[in-house]
Amino acid sequence: MASKLAAECIFCKIIRGEIPSFKIHETAHSFAFFDIGPLSEGHALVIPKHHAEKMHELPDEFLADAMPVAKKIALALGADNYNILQNNGRLAHQEVPHVHFHVIPKPNEEEGLTISWPAKKADFDKLKELVSKTKI
Amino acid sequence: MASKLAAECIFCKIIRGEIPSFKIHETAHSFAFFDIGPLSEGHALVIPKHHAEKMHELPDEFLADAMPVAKKIALALGADNYNILQNNGRLAHQEVPHVHFHVIPKPNEEEGLTISWPAKKADFDKLKELVSKTKI
Ligand SMILES: [Zn+2]
Ligand SMILES: [Zn+2]
Repeated sequence: MASKLAAECIFCKIIRGEIPSFKIHETAHSFAFFDIGPLSEGHALVIPKHHAEKMHELPDEFLADAMPVAKKIALALGADNYNILQNNGRLAHQEVPHVHFHVIPKPNEEEGLTISWPAKKADFDKLKELVSKTKI
Repeated sequence: MASKLAAECIFCKIIRGEIPSFKIHETAHSFAFFDIGPLSEGHALVIPKHHAEKMHELPDEFLADAMPVAKKIALALGADNYNILQNNGRLAHQEVPHVHFHVIPKPNEEEGLTISWPAKKADFDKLKELVSKTKI
């Protein structure tokens, strides 16, 4: 439960209450609030109460808490269509270097997250090789 | 731990081993494998071992397990830039009606997830109102 917060991080400041936020919910491990630059009405952020830039740097207990909180938000918003998105690294569109999970309602084609999906057909031999390299 | 799997769902069939997959990892609550229509090399899926179409329909223990598994995959892939994405509903780009979390490496501008981010400036009065309607 003891978390490591960073002095200068904007999200750590929000968690500590040093910067006001449109807070929705809080647990021992997570803090949730509305994004002030929303893609759609109800666009919320769930942030772990532990400073880490990327999700693979977070202790499991913080990761485990985030999705049940996102679920509560989706239920409270009554969203039928929505995306959960978490970006790691500038190249992957991360803006604030503190892990955050977006809950983004998708009420219509125009609002919410717009993604393009240029899927490739996998090379099955390469995938088999990747499995043997990656197996956990 | 006992999970509810659906007879005709393609992901439930993968979990049961009735359809082969490029499996990476498995826990009591989750099953992880490579996507055969990848957006980039290493594009993986984490699926709960419980049939539900949308994430807010999942029991918390399945939600809690998904992100620590995604973390293991990110670490095993050695991905530096990557996105975690989970789509709910056709409008929000969901293709298979069984909850799945994408782990999508973003090695360069061309490969991986491409999103557009038409953020609006929030109306703070409306946000305040939304907080009071949403508070959990
Ligand atoms: Zn921070
Ligand atoms: Zn299923």
